[in-house]
Amino acid sequence: MSLKFERKLQIFVTNDDGVNAKGLAALIEMVQPYGDVYVVAPTHVNSGMSQAVTINVPVRLIKVKQTENLKIYACTGTPTDCVKIAYSHVLPNKHADLMVSGINHGSNSSASVLYSGTLAATTEGIMYHTPSIGFSLCDYSTNADFSACIQVGQKIIEKVLNENFGIDSFLNVNIPKLPLSEIKGIQFCRQAKGVWREEFEKRTDPQGMDYYWLTGEYVNEEPDAIDTDESWLAQGYVTIVPQMLDMTNYAELEKIKNWKF
Amino acid sequence: MSLKFERKLQIFVTNDDGVNAKGLAALIEMVQPYGDVYVVAPTHVNSGMSQAVTINVPVRLIKVKQTENLKIYACTGTPTDCVKIAYSHVLPNKHADLMVSGINHGSNSSASVLYSGTLAATTEGIMYHTPSIGFSLCDYSTNADFSACIQVGQKIIEKVLNENFGIDSFLNVNIPKLPLSEIKGIQFCRQAKGVWREEFEKRTDPQGMDYYWLTGEYVNEEPDAIDTDESWLAQGYVTIVPQMLDMTNYAELEKIKNWKF
Repeated sequence: MSLKFERKLQIFVTNDDGVNAKGLAALIEMVQPYGDVYVVAPTHVNSGMSQAVTINVPVRLIKVKQTENLKIYACTGTPTDCVKIAYSHVLPNKHADLMVSGINHGSNSSASVLYSGTLAATTEGIMYHTPSIGFSLCDYSTNADFSACIQVGQKIIEKVLNENFGIDSFLNVNIPKLPLSEIKGIQFCRQAKGVWREEFEKRTDPQGMDYYWLTGEYVNEEPDAIDTDESWLAQGYVTIVPQMLDMTNYAELEKIKNWKF
Repeated sequence: MSLKFERKLQIFVTNDDGVNAKGLAALIEMVQPYGDVYVVAPTHVNSGMSQAVTINVPVRLIKVKQTENLKIYACTGTPTDCVKIAYSHVLPNKHADLMVSGINHGSNSSASVLYSGTLAATTEGIMYHTPSIGFSLCDYSTNADFSACIQVGQKIIEKVLNENFGIDSFLNVNIPKLPLSEIKGIQFCRQAKGVWREEFEKRTDPQGMDYYWLTGEYVNEEPDAIDTDESWLAQGYVTIVPQMLDMTNYAELEKIKNWKF
């Protein structure tokens, strides 16, 4: 470990795959060497919940585990609710020195970042002025092998803490489905432009009524670009995209501000 | 009307306040002069749903109204589901010339854009390569007066269509709670930096168990900035922020890409 940082950190952990996910256990293992760990994670799978908040029903907070250095709670709300309730009711002094989300079972690159509960939670971390990192492994299996993630993640955490990174942006880290020895390196890059297509499949229920299941396939709209998360992941690299909360398109703003009405 | 554009348009309409919201009726009235209108809106209020998609249960699509120029469906899913199912199963040729979302009962400025179902739906419109506009009135009342919005909105729609705006960005339009005669003008601007704070209120149920309601107040983190949506709205202007889907922070990317591991 190469932390300049000597005092014990207060670390907040959440995810969107739920409190029982293997990826959450791996993330706890990743951060435990650095301090006291507080976990608030959804009671069940919340993939695709984006930054949704629970407004019309109340939520519950359930204590799952309590040791001196590790406290785990489940929350019946969304990943974003988990962050908000952690800062309101779980974290001592409503403070964390580091916030991590994941490790997601499946990639969160390109257009997926907009739907991801994992990254929405990470966005919330930044809103609470905590250096925040979202981790995703490119393997959707519930029994995925997260061992390489733990080592890669620790390198990134140490860098973030030593560099005091994370005022206006969080890091979106994707890790390819490869053993550590076959991962080619770490690349800083941008979010690829892409979309999800053909999404609702029509079926008929036993009463003869139609219903629709969400399906879809990802379409990379710039397959030849070399500086994107999609491109580097396909080549076996870990990708890091700094993501921000300001969605203003400044280039377009310059163009349209001369419109006359 | 000053549309250069002569052919009849195919227009898609959605919202997050639900198919029965007064703001949806106002939005339909706003766009009907321009073409055939297809509406798919949630069956009930979906505020704060962000870009959530429904993965673990199927959704239903219910026909509510059908005339030659206006077709309205309700969908049991989220606002984002409404857009996806509209392009899969409702819009002829899976195409729209214009997509509008709202009119939201309440503002969608600053940090609220990240939680907004209205704007998440508008984001989806851009993913389907449709020029898209999200409209919000700064009045949370279910019986708000949308009459000024209709006239302001038509000016903006005509500009968007005539300028061929909307490949990588949509327009986020907020309208102050004022009669048309008191609105000072239209300002193009950026998203203010702000957060929501102190969010879960603890209560005890009749069985003695704790539960938590989401509450919170908005904190403008740059109250003195003059070029933001918050600032112009407070002065009585309509605000237009071009919003993009690429959340990469390019300035930070330049800084961190030299990190060595």
